Amino acid sequence: MVSRSIQIGSQTTVLLEGHGSRRRLVEHLQSQGQRWLVISDERVSQHWRSDPFAAEVPWLLVPSGEEFKSIASASRLWSELCALKVDRHTAVVAVGGGMVCDLAGFVAATYLRGLPFCAVPTSLLAMVDASVGGKVAVDLPEGKNLVGQFYPAQAVALDSDFLDSLPVVEWSSGMAEVIKHGLIAGDPLWTWLESLERQDLLQREVRDRLLHEAVEVKRRIVEVDPFERLGPRATLNLGHTFGHALEWSSAYRLRHGEAVGLGLLAAVRMSRALGLLQQDLEPRLVALLERWGLPTQLPEPFAPSWEWSRLMSALDRDKKNRGGRWTFLLLRGPGRVETVVGPEPDQVRSAFDSLRSPARAGAA
Amino acid sequence: MVSRSIQIGSQTTVLLEGHGSRRRLVEHLQSQGQRWLVISDERVSQHWRSDPFAAEVPWLLVPSGEEFKSIASASRLWSELCALKVDRHTAVVAVGGGMVCDLAGFVAATYLRGLPFCAVPTSLLAMVDASVGGKVAVDLPEGKNLVGQFYPAQAVALDSDFLDSLPVVEWSSGMAEVIKHGLIAGDPLWTWLESLERQDLLQREVRDRLLHEAVEVKRRIVEVDPFERLGPRATLNLGHTFGHALEWSSAYRLRHGEAVGLGLLAAVRMSRALGLLQQDLEPRLVALLERWGLPTQLPEPFAPSWEWSRLMSALDRDKKNRGGRWTFLLLRGPGRVETVVGPEPDQVRSAFDSLRSPARAGAA
Repeated sequence: MVSRSIQIGSQTTVLLEGHGSRRRLVEHLQSQGQRWLVISDERVSQHWRSDPFAAEVPWLLVPSGEEFKSIASASRLWSELCALKVDRHTAVVAVGGGMVCDLAGFVAATYLRGLPFCAVPTSLLAMVDASVGGKVAVDLPEGKNLVGQFYPAQAVALDSDFLDSLPVVEWSSGMAEVIKHGLIAGDPLWTWLESLERQDLLQREVRDRLLHEAVEVKRRIVEVDPFERLGPRATLNLGHTFGHALEWSSAYRLRHGEAVGLGLLAAVRMSRALGLLQQDLEPRLVALLERWGLPTQLPEPFAPSWEWSRLMSALDRDKKNRGGRWTFLLLRGPGRVETVVGPEPDQVRSAFDSLRSPARAGAA
Repeated sequence: MVSRSIQIGSQTTVLLEGHGSRRRLVEHLQSQGQRWLVISDERVSQHWRSDPFAAEVPWLLVPSGEEFKSIASASRLWSELCALKVDRHTAVVAVGGGMVCDLAGFVAATYLRGLPFCAVPTSLLAMVDASVGGKVAVDLPEGKNLVGQFYPAQAVALDSDFLDSLPVVEWSSGMAEVIKHGLIAGDPLWTWLESLERQDLLQREVRDRLLHEAVEVKRRIVEVDPFERLGPRATLNLGHTFGHALEWSSAYRLRHGEAVGLGLLAAVRMSRALGLLQQDLEPRLVALLERWGLPTQLPEPFAPSWEWSRLMSALDRDKKNRGGRWTFLLLRGPGRVETVVGPEPDQVRSAFDSLRSPARAGAA
């Protein structure tokens, strides 16, 4: 499969795609005589540290889990870079999921005012979202991704080999972002996703197409509005205003994809309640979420997380807020996202509360 | 006095110059309906918090001193921005010296992936150096400015009113950077600086000219090489390889300007020893340093700081290092800076050791 590139402001991210592209990334670094090292997490390193593509370079590790996407982890990594006497010409290669890509990118963006940065995402979620588009960040105790930068990777290897061994729960999480891309882009992607069965993804060509199409949605939007100043890029936050608030409220026990799936459902319901969305999209979305093993109701085990006051304080810290007013991305239909600034708190609360009850049975 | 601007890559920093320009900066923010707040330190806030230009907005304060230009201070400020529900449209205005400008700029660059940022430098040092050119940073325990970004201020007010009440020791510190700019630019600036007596600066026009000329040197260099990729911008590090190492070795008891002055002297001696510098520049430099109350010998009270092993470990972490080799900016003469990669450690040590003995009497 050929390579694409994403233009983000004045910078270009080369996308290496398909089977074995992690090795092509490394060959590219080696051909330039580039010194490099890996930042990863413990879980990913157990599987991939001895893989030949990066067996010869230092691996700096953080514990696995969103709670380690923190300033404390970044501080430890900065000190390890000091200890390794890393200079401005040493590249950082993130090897891992979204958490690793975000954290390693932030560390690379800030150490010595910026090291060369590449990403080898190992999860579907990171491939279609975190690794492309230039957003890097760490969380604060107060909320997700509050500290970060726009720092596009020079190259990203979208290597479908990693998907061969991807746990089911990781497929679910990634599919939430793919479904989001389907809702943002509309047809033909949306209806293709509706037609897709789980077993279809056993075929490598289908997996590669899924990756390609999902990334293409992000590429088109990011190139128009690289720094989220004009509006289009904010549409990628569909489902994420609720999603981030739910994720934070659960102290990250709810996975990102699960939270985004619930966020999409809340957004569809709120769009309907506000009269923006004329068609009955909910059963189609529920069917998709269910097919990919995503929750359509707030999980009972984390019940104490679902207090309205807790959700409100998370919403108050959303990066899209303007003049203290909440900002939601809502839908007029697949392919038609609309920004709504300052909805009535009651409307937001209704959508949130609706997630406490079972969803209407999905029907694709 | 008219305004200039500095073009840094795709971004423009407007420079508001002369008496009262801090108020023009605020009027500019107000005319755009911009929400804003101040980040400053305790010492500066004692003098300026009740000044009408910023009496109405929140002031977030850190303790004074380079040792607080840290990730810990940045973390506290990020949390305070959370608590104030600051959004992406709220500007951060740094009011203070170099430490405040660097720290506030880093916090602004990273909070919510970047808030609008302006600077009101209150020291000569910050006016001619830290506030212009887009470098923002915090220190790590391992070294100075190791974590940061290129994040140019949208506007900088170079308000000479602040210089009216500037302590003598702050004048000295700032003049070290001005002398550096004279050495980098050469004539006519260099000989003009040699002709300048301390009492000349009692005249406002002379102060304004000094500011203007010193910033002009930086502007010309930064516009050619905004992100220090080509080489010219690195010349602004003249005296800073030694300077940063001395400053760090003394645990910041040596002031930045004092360290830079000593670093310039060491660079001149090393340039001479390596045969780069043909003329006997040392007495002229010593005369200038002495005139502005800057040390020309390592201060005795911090004697334990001046161990060679300690200096070496600081040099090992210099941001300009390439492939583990030290990089120094040296001189062929005023206006002729040369980059030297990988000098013999003995040559570096000789220049360092020379700072233990009194300098030859200066003669302008």
